[in-house]
Amino acid sequence: MSYTTITLERDGPLAVITLNRPDAMNAFTLEMGAELRAAFDETDADGSVRAVIVTGAGKAFCAGADLSTGAETFNAVAQAQASGTLDDRDPQWRDSGGRLNLRIFNSHKPVVAAINGASVGIGATMILPMDARIALKGAKFAYPFTKRGIAWDGCASWFLPRVVGVETALDWGLSGRTFLAEEAHEAGLVSALADTPGAVMELALERARRLIDGGAPVSVAMNRRLLWRMLGASHPMEAHRLESRAILHRGMSPDAAEGVMSFLEKRPAAFPGTVPESYPPGWPWDEDPDY
Amino acid sequence: MSYTTITLERDGPLAVITLNRPDAMNAFTLEMGAELRAAFDETDADGSVRAVIVTGAGKAFCAGADLSTGAETFNAVAQAQASGTLDDRDPQWRDSGGRLNLRIFNSHKPVVAAINGASVGIGATMILPMDARIALKGAKFAYPFTKRGIAWDGCASWFLPRVVGVETALDWGLSGRTFLAEEAHEAGLVSALADTPGAVMELALERARRLIDGGAPVSVAMNRRLLWRMLGASHPMEAHRLESRAILHRGMSPDAAEGVMSFLEKRPAAFPGTVPESYPPGWPWDEDPDY
Amino acid sequence: MSYTTITLERDGPLAVITLNRPDAMNAFTLEMGAELRAAFDETDADGSVRAVIVTGAGKAFCAGADLSTGAETFNAVAQAQASGTLDDRDPQWRDSGGRLNLRIFNSHKPVVAAINGASVGIGATMILPMDARIALKGAKFAYPFTKRGIAWDGCASWFLPRVVGVETALDWGLSGRTFLAEEAHEAGLVSALADTPGAVMELALERARRLIDGGAPVSVAMNRRLLWRMLGASHPMEAHRLESRAILHRGMSPDAAEGVMSFLEKRPAAFPGTVPESYPPGWPWDEDPDY
Repeated sequence: MSYTTITLERDGPLAVITLNRPDAMNAFTLEMGAELRAAFDETDADGSVRAVIVTGAGKAFCAGADLSTGAETFNAVAQAQASGTLDDRDPQWRDSGGRLNLRIFNSHKPVVAAINGASVGIGATMILPMDARIALKGAKFAYPFTKRGIAWDGCASWFLPRVVGVETALDWGLSGRTFLAEEAHEAGLVSALADTPGAVMELALERARRLIDGGAPVSVAMNRRLLWRMLGASHPMEAHRLESRAILHRGMSPDAAEGVMSFLEKRPAAFPGTVPESYPPGWPWDEDPDY
Repeated sequence: MSYTTITLERDGPLAVITLNRPDAMNAFTLEMGAELRAAFDETDADGSVRAVIVTGAGKAFCAGADLSTGAETFNAVAQAQASGTLDDRDPQWRDSGGRLNLRIFNSHKPVVAAINGASVGIGATMILPMDARIALKGAKFAYPFTKRGIAWDGCASWFLPRVVGVETALDWGLSGRTFLAEEAHEAGLVSALADTPGAVMELALERARRLIDGGAPVSVAMNRRLLWRMLGASHPMEAHRLESRAILHRGMSPDAAEGVMSFLEKRPAAFPGTVPESYPPGWPWDEDPDY
Repeated sequence: MSYTTITLERDGPLAVITLNRPDAMNAFTLEMGAELRAAFDETDADGSVRAVIVTGAGKAFCAGADLSTGAETFNAVAQAQASGTLDDRDPQWRDSGGRLNLRIFNSHKPVVAAINGASVGIGATMILPMDARIALKGAKFAYPFTKRGIAWDGCASWFLPRVVGVETALDWGLSGRTFLAEEAHEAGLVSALADTPGAVMELALERARRLIDGGAPVSVAMNRRLLWRMLGASHPMEAHRLESRAILHRGMSPDAAEGVMSFLEKRPAAFPGTVPESYPPGWPWDEDPDY
């Protein structure tokens, strides 16, 4: 598939998605949102992809929403009237950042952010449903929604307190202030810092490899999705139901036999199953709740 | 409005609520609970108030429930029979601390605790739905409910593990032991420590100003309430629905135009919207679930 | 009651459950799962037991599932056909680790893990619903489910991110890698480290005593169960309802009178109530949701 605002490249079993509007600090557009969702469809559909890295071209990771339409930037009704794409009485208008982040939340492959520079607004919310975040020292972060007169995007009101705690999330999200990667690291948003963009990418690749190297691809996908989904579940019984079905299903698979035998024989495992080929179709939570 | 157990004063855009029973270590009474709820109604209703500080008069912040009725202190039935205010068969009896904390949870304005001294029992639970907590070094904290033979109050069983994690919450809440502000700081309950009560208030005012200085008041209110509400939500889709409606609504507002234009013109923003005047009435979660 | 895979001993008000298959590194079997559930039934039913310690005999805490049936280890259908204990069309097949952890989640007495050695697989998930975890320095931990080709067990997809945060839970649970007690301590899984197995047990006993020494047994049981249950609740109103009923019930008890009077008289409390004798039968959440 061909993209205009991003690129999708391969590094062995890893896919690298690069936000690719460097002259605009990779500012987010509706087109970029749609292309990112399509790219995650593509990585999920390709059984040879094991994990995904997301990074930015040029100096920024993503400077946030493209503000080039000025005062009407966030006026979806005016935008829609101008472009003819939206019925202004449509109750189904949806935040593009939220659509993207629900897509990443549901990725079958682990996702690691390689934050090579400024990460602002939707640039700072799209990293939240990713599995780890590596950042350049000194990179600027901000959740400036109150400063633009709008509100959280990208389901950040759900994700951010679960990643950094409620007090820090309130501080960043009410003040809208800019902070550095060092503070993000201290708060647990960023797992590791690096000195150069190249070193950021190296650490991100290393983390992605760590997440996938040992495990059966189907098990990695199930464990990833179970964990993110259970993060909001009201009772451990919900996990018990889903884990029981997952173990029952997986326990009969050639992967489970290989997992035990390779351990007993002290040799590396060679798991036959791939994703999506061996992933149980229609797994209970493959479908999101309706919007 | 006039209060007898608290005071409500103004410091520019900030309101300062002071628990004002210094001879009784600001021990909590049903009257104080009712007055505090009324004070938050007042700060929410006044468009010139941007944030709220809560502190205590004298040496303590709040020493917990007033125990002056001795053995019958927590016997709501006996208390009600004595005062004629409660039908002892009434299934609607409600913990006063919980009613207060649900009110703070729903505040449209950010709330910062300036913990000038001992913070015990309901004094240590009423700070949990606040947005940040500054404390005096050496101040004593306790959740002594098991030691009094009762149970969590103030919805602390919901709030406390979300602020300090489940293990610390269990330690404090089962042992009932007294601990110092330093341990509270280490555990993440307290964001910053200060050497004197005056310095506690200074840091609290500074934090409150940081939370409100940059943002549109309506956006600050929405982001605050979204974040606290989504802290319990079962799926990010819930955030996506509410954020989409919030962004759609806000995107058409003069605040959003001013937010973008002030940024592009590199000048401070002057947001016209105030709360409650410009806040969308009946916002979906303005009503709590029924008791 | 007599057990074959575990022992249950008493140390004053504390019960000590020891996983007792030292020649097999205390590897978990279905029989061990059933015996552990029975042991928690026993400690809950005995009013003289105030808290529970769980530890392992010999060098390991628990090395995970017993792999002695080789490639068919996790094939519940094949296992059931061999043993005649399961209808392979039975949709009610349940993960034994999940059944155990739901039982610990619902324990009326606090539970502390004394992790004397390796804690792997179900050995590393059964500690999650416990109230504190003390570990031997250098002890090995792993959640190797992806490496065995299976999936999370023991409701770990619900518990683990609530104990160590989502990013660490994903790292451990996707990679399946082995890590040491020191990393577990750093991440908040382990509260304290000790140099010798004896010192691990000492710290565990000390922590258990701290959790129960000051409080009324009924209040400790209620506060423990309220907190764990509210960890998944969608709104603080749920806590408000349950806390209100708990305080109303407890406030009329002799424990509450003793709790206040002992405090006013500055003497140790002597609470008459015990668990289960004085615990309100049918407390709203005594029953789990259906499987």
